[in-house]
Amino acid sequence: MKSVLTPEELEAAIRQVGAERYHDKHPFHRLLHGGKLNKGQVQAWALNRYCYQAGVPRKDAALMSRALDRELRREWLHRILDHDGSGGEEGGIERWLVLTDALGLDRAYVVSMEGALPATRFAVEAYVNFVRERTLLEAVASSLTELFAPSIHRERISGMLESYAFVGERAMQYFRRRLDQANRDADFALAYVKQHARTPEEQAAAVAAVHFKCNVLWAQLDALHHAYVTPGLLPPGAFRPAGP
Amino acid sequence: MKSVLTPEELEAAIRQVGAERYHDKHPFHRLLHGGKLNKGQVQAWALNRYCYQAGVPRKDAALMSRALDRELRREWLHRILDHDGSGGEEGGIERWLVLTDALGLDRAYVVSMEGALPATRFAVEAYVNFVRERTLLEAVASSLTELFAPSIHRERISGMLESYAFVGERAMQYFRRRLDQANRDADFALAYVKQHARTPEEQAAAVAAVHFKCNVLWAQLDALHHAYVTPGLLPPGAFRPAGP
Repeated sequence: MKSVLTPEELEAAIRQVGAERYHDKHPFHRLLHGGKLNKGQVQAWALNRYCYQAGVPRKDAALMSRALDRELRREWLHRILDHDGSGGEEGGIERWLVLTDALGLDRAYVVSMEGALPATRFAVEAYVNFVRERTLLEAVASSLTELFAPSIHRERISGMLESYAFVGERAMQYFRRRLDQANRDADFALAYVKQHARTPEEQAAAVAAVHFKCNVLWAQLDALHHAYVTPGLLPPGAFRPAGP
Repeated sequence: MKSVLTPEELEAAIRQVGAERYHDKHPFHRLLHGGKLNKGQVQAWALNRYCYQAGVPRKDAALMSRALDRELRREWLHRILDHDGSGGEEGGIERWLVLTDALGLDRAYVVSMEGALPATRFAVEAYVNFVRERTLLEAVASSLTELFAPSIHRERISGMLESYAFVGERAMQYFRRRLDQANRDADFALAYVKQHARTPEEQAAAVAAVHFKCNVLWAQLDALHHAYVTPGLLPPGAFRPAGP
C-alpha cells in the first residue's frame, strides 16, 4: 500500500516530472533557442504553436464549467482574460499573432490552422478533453507545467532575439508577458493541488496529470522535428516554408 | 420539405415559444408575484433558485469551452463575470445570497444545496449538459429565454416589494441588475442565432433549444409547486419551512 506524501513531497514529485520531461529538454527547443533553425522552421513552430495558444482558453473554460466552487472559477477566469483579452487589452492569442505577423505569415492562414500538423491539433484536443473528462484535481494539476515555463520563456526571449535577425523585440511581447502571468497562475494551481490531493491515489493522479501535460507539449515538438528537421518529412497539406 | 425562415420569422418563432411556455405563465410565479405565498414558500423558491444561479456560470463556461471563435468567447465571458463577480464587484450569485440572507436563510445551508429539491438540481444539470453536448448554435439559442426575462424581473420587483413585508429593496438588487444585463445578453445571442441558423434544420434546432430551456425553468416551478403549494408533498430531506 502506498503512503501519503506530505505537500512538500508532492511538490517535489511534480517538479521531478518537469525535470525529466518538460519540453525544454526537446532537441527542437535547443535548436530554436540556440539559433540553429532557419526562418521557415521558426515559422512552422509559430504557426503550429498557435493551435495550442488558441486551445488554452477552451481548456480553461472547460475547467470552469466543472468547478462548483465559485472562488476557483473567479480565480481561473483571469487565465481566459489573459489569453483572449478583454476590451482594450489584446490578450495572449493576439500577441502570438503579432509574432506570426513578424515572421511574415499570413494571419488568416495561421488562424485557419490549415497548415498546422495534424499531430499538433490532436495533442491540443487531447489536452482540452483531458480537462473536460478527468477529475477537477487532475484538470488543475495538468496546468502545472507553468511551474517550468518562466525559465523556458527567458531562454527563448534572449535566444531568439540574439539568434534571429527576423525576430524583433515586439514579436517577443507574448513571452515577456507570460513571465509574470505563468508565475501567478502556477502558484495558485500548485497550492490548490497540494491542498486537495490528499490520498495516495489523488497524489498519483496529480503527478500523472503533469506527466500527461508534458507529453502534450513534447508530442508537438516531436511532430515539428519530424516534419521540419529530421527527416523533414512533410505530411500532406502541412505548411511548406518558402525556402531557406 | 421545410422552407428556410427569414431571420425575422425565426425571431418570431422563438418569441412564440416564450409566449406559450416561459415560466411567467406558471401558477407558482403568479402566486409569488401576487403576494400569495407565505415566507416559507418564498424561502423555498429562493433556495431552490440558488441552484440555478450557481449553475449558470458553469453553463456559460461550458459554452466557451466549445467556442473556436475568440470573439464569441470574449463576448460570452462577461456573463461569467456578471454571475461570479470579479475583484470588488460582487456578482449575481452573491446578490442572490443577499436575497436569501434577507429571507432569514442560513447562507451555508443555501450554498450546500442540501435542502434543494432533487428535481431542481436535475433540471439545472440538464441545462449544463445540454450546453456541453449540443451544437454551439443550440447552446447559444438556449440562453434566449433572456428575451423574456426583463418583464418578469420588473413584475417580480414590484410584486414582491409590495406584497411581502419581509422583502426589502436591498434584497431585490439581483433583479434590478439583471434588467440591463439580460437585455444586452439577449440582443447579442439573438443576433448570433439569426445569423447562424440558416438551414431549416438549424432553425428548428434553435427554436427547440428555447423550448428545452423553457422546460428547464418550468420544471423547477412544478417541483416547487408540488412540494410547497399543492399538494405540499415534501420529498425526504427537502427544506422544511419553520411554519407560516
